[in-house]
Amino acid sequence: MAVSPPPIPDFLPPLAGFRLAVASCGIKNGRRERDDLLLVEMAPETTVAGLFTRNRVQAAPVVLSRQRLAWGRARGLLVNSGNANAVTGEAGMRAALETSALAAHLIGADEHELFVASTGVIGTPLPVEQIVSEMPGMVDSLAAGGWERAARAIMTTDTFPKLASRECRIGAESVRIIGMTKGAGMIRPDMATMLAFLFTDADIASASLRTLLNRAVAGSFNAISVDGDQSTNDTMLLFASGRAGNGRVESADDPRLAEFAQALHAVCRELAQAIVRDGEGASKFVTLTVSGAAGDAEAKQVAMAIANSPLVKTALAGSDPNWGRILAAAGYAGVGFDPGALSLWLGEVLVVERGQLANTYEEARGAAVMAAAEIAIRLDLGGGAGTSTVWTCDLTHDYITINADYRT
Amino acid sequence: MAVSPPPIPDFLPPLAGFRLAVASCGIKNGRRERDDLLLVEMAPETTVAGLFTRNRVQAAPVVLSRQRLAWGRARGLLVNSGNANAVTGEAGMRAALETSALAAHLIGADEHELFVASTGVIGTPLPVEQIVSEMPGMVDSLAAGGWERAARAIMTTDTFPKLASRECRIGAESVRIIGMTKGAGMIRPDMATMLAFLFTDADIASASLRTLLNRAVAGSFNAISVDGDQSTNDTMLLFASGRAGNGRVESADDPRLAEFAQALHAVCRELAQAIVRDGEGASKFVTLTVSGAAGDAEAKQVAMAIANSPLVKTALAGSDPNWGRILAAAGYAGVGFDPGALSLWLGEVLVVERGQLANTYEEARGAAVMAAAEIAIRLDLGGGAGTSTVWTCDLTHDYITINADYRT
Repeated sequence: MAVSPPPIPDFLPPLAGFRLAVASCGIKNGRRERDDLLLVEMAPETTVAGLFTRNRVQAAPVVLSRQRLAWGRARGLLVNSGNANAVTGEAGMRAALETSALAAHLIGADEHELFVASTGVIGTPLPVEQIVSEMPGMVDSLAAGGWERAARAIMTTDTFPKLASRECRIGAESVRIIGMTKGAGMIRPDMATMLAFLFTDADIASASLRTLLNRAVAGSFNAISVDGDQSTNDTMLLFASGRAGNGRVESADDPRLAEFAQALHAVCRELAQAIVRDGEGASKFVTLTVSGAAGDAEAKQVAMAIANSPLVKTALAGSDPNWGRILAAAGYAGVGFDPGALSLWLGEVLVVERGQLANTYEEARGAAVMAAAEIAIRLDLGGGAGTSTVWTCDLTHDYITINADYRT
Repeated sequence: MAVSPPPIPDFLPPLAGFRLAVASCGIKNGRRERDDLLLVEMAPETTVAGLFTRNRVQAAPVVLSRQRLAWGRARGLLVNSGNANAVTGEAGMRAALETSALAAHLIGADEHELFVASTGVIGTPLPVEQIVSEMPGMVDSLAAGGWERAARAIMTTDTFPKLASRECRIGAESVRIIGMTKGAGMIRPDMATMLAFLFTDADIASASLRTLLNRAVAGSFNAISVDGDQSTNDTMLLFASGRAGNGRVESADDPRLAEFAQALHAVCRELAQAIVRDGEGASKFVTLTVSGAAGDAEAKQVAMAIANSPLVKTALAGSDPNWGRILAAAGYAGVGFDPGALSLWLGEVLVVERGQLANTYEEARGAAVMAAAEIAIRLDLGGGAGTSTVWTCDLTHDYITINADYRT
C-alpha cells in the first residue's frame, strides 16, 4: 500500500518574467543519469523573499543566499541536487561563489542577484567543474515553461515531482503563482521542506513578499513532519517578476492582496502535503487535529509530539488503532492538560471520551479507520479554544531501507 | 548482528529483609505461558524513595505509588507485566487499590506501605480476578532470593532479564544493592526506564535515599535513549531494609555513604545500559560523548538530539559513517556553537576537524568503526568545559516489526 501522489497539474503555462533550463551533470556519482541542475533566469526588477533552516550547521548556499536576500532583488536561481554542499568548509563557500558568479555573468546579472540552493549528501565537495562546464549550454537553452522537468531536477529521494499552482486577481489583473518543492526525509517544522521555490508574475515589493511568505508557511511547511530531523539546507524562496502589470503593491496588508495571500497559502499547503505524501517509506497520510488547547501554539505543540512519536508512527504503519500511544505522546508534549478531559477520534469513530475508553468503541471500527491510506485523527484536550492541524506519515520498513544506506 | 546482552550476575544472594514470589496469571492474553506477576515482601521499617514518569498521562499505579511515597515506608511491592493499567479511568484506579489492598492484607502490612507498578498494553482493563486469585498462593511461596526469575516476570518486549549488583561498605558493615529493570522501547530521559527496582539491606533514611537516587539517575537512566518516546508508567523505586545493621544514616552527604553512592550509581548505569543493549530491534550499542559545550546541560542537550535522530539511528543500522547527519542533528539541538569549531571522532578515527573533513580521514576507516556492534562517537563543540555521555542504539527493521503490530 502506498499513499497516492497528488496529481501533477496538467499543464503549467509559462510565467512572464521567468525562463528555465535543466542539465545533467552527474553531481552525485559522476553518472549523468538524470537532471540534477536547474537554472531559472528572472526579469530585471524581480523582487524576492526567503526563509531558511534554523539549524546551526548551515550549508554554504544557505549562508550565501541569506546574505543576498538583503538586496531584495533577484535575476537568477541555480539549484543542484545530489550534493548538499554542507559541512564543506571554505571550499564549499568558494564553490557556491564560483558557480553563482558564472551564472550571474552568463545571464548578465549582478552576483548579489543570483541565488543558490543545494540538496543531497552532506560533507562531499561539490563537483564545481562538472557544473561549470554545463552552464553555458544551459543559458543557451533557457526557455519559458518546463516546470515539471525543473521540479524533477531538484529531487533526491523524492518519488514524484511536487508542483502546485493557483491563479488569482490583484485588482483588475490576473496573476499566477507556480511553486515547486522537493523533500521526503529530514523533514520537520521551522522550515520543514528542504527546498521550495515559488514564482509569480505579480508585482509586489520584497518586504511585503516576506510578510506574505511567513504567513503562508505557518499553516503549511511549518505544520508537517516526516521524521523530525531538520536539514542543514532548507531553503524557500519566493520570486515576483512583476510582469503581470498589476502595479507595484507595497504593503502586505493592502486589501488588493487578499486573494493573492489565499492563493499563496493554498500553493504552500498543497506542496507541503505533497512532501508528507512522499515521506520516505510512507504508506499513510495522516491529518492530525488537536483542539481544546489553551492556545493554537499549545495545540500545535501537542500535535507535533504525536506526529513525531516513533511508536505512533509504527502503529500507523501496522494499521494498529493503538490509541494509548497517541495519548502517551500527547502527555509528554510539555503542555498542561487534564488527562480526564481528553477525547480522541480515529476518523469518525469516538475512541476515548473524557479520559476513558468510549462505551461505544469497538476495536474493529478503529482498525478499519487505521487500515486506510488516508487517516484523520482528532484529539480534543477539553480545555480552551486553541486548535491546530498538522500532517504526517507513518514510519515503515521502507524508511529504514532508504536511510540505512542512503549514500551507497 | 546483535548487541551482546550484559552477563547476568552468576549468583545473586538473598538480601536480608526481602522475600520474593512470582506467578503466571495470563495477564496479557489469558494464556499462562510466562510469569507476569511479582510480589516482594519487605521487613518492617524498610525505607523507600522513588521517581516516576513526567508524562501528563499517568497510569493508575504511578498515581497510587507516588501518593504512598509520602509515608517513606514500604512493606511490599506488586508488579505486573502485560498490562499497563494506563488510561483505564476510575476502574483502573480501583484495580490498583484492590490488588494492592489484598497484597497488604496478606502480608500483614498497612495499605500505604504497598507499592504497585504495571507495564504493558495501554487502555485495556487490568484482569483483577486473575491477579487476585493467584495472590494467596504467592504469599505462601515467598522466599529469599530468586532475583533472576523476578527480573524475567517484569519483562515485556525485553529479550533478556536485566540485573545488576554491587557490594560495598557503610562504616564497618558490608551492604549490598541488587537492582532489576525492564524496558526496551518507549525509552527516553526523564525516567527513561519503564520499571526499575533497587533493593538494599543498608539502613538509610528515606529522605537521603531520595537524594542518592536522584544523583545516581542523572548519569544513568536519564542518559539513555532508545526511541525518544516516554512512557505513562515509568516507575523507579529504591527500597532499603536496614537489615545490614550499619546504623541508620540520616544524611545523604554523610561521608559513610560515599562508597554506597558510587555502588548505587554503578548499578543504575549497568541497568540503564542493559536497556539500551536490549533496545527494540537494536543491533548497535553506541556510547556518545559530547564535549566542549558551555556547560554539562548543553552538552547533554546536543548528545540527546543526536541520540534521538532517526537519520543518525538508521545510518548506524546501515553501518554507514554518515557523519553529516551527526553534525546536522547537533545543529538543531537548540544549543549555540560555532560550526567551524566542531571536531568529530568515530571510535579513534578523526573525521571532522574544526568544521571540515579531516585531511587524514578515509571513508574505509570510518566504515570499519561503524560496522562494529559497539560504537563510540565523540563530538567536540570547541567551546567550554561542558561534557556529557549518553547511550543509545540504532533504528532497525526489527524496531518497526516489533512496534507496528505490538498488540496482536
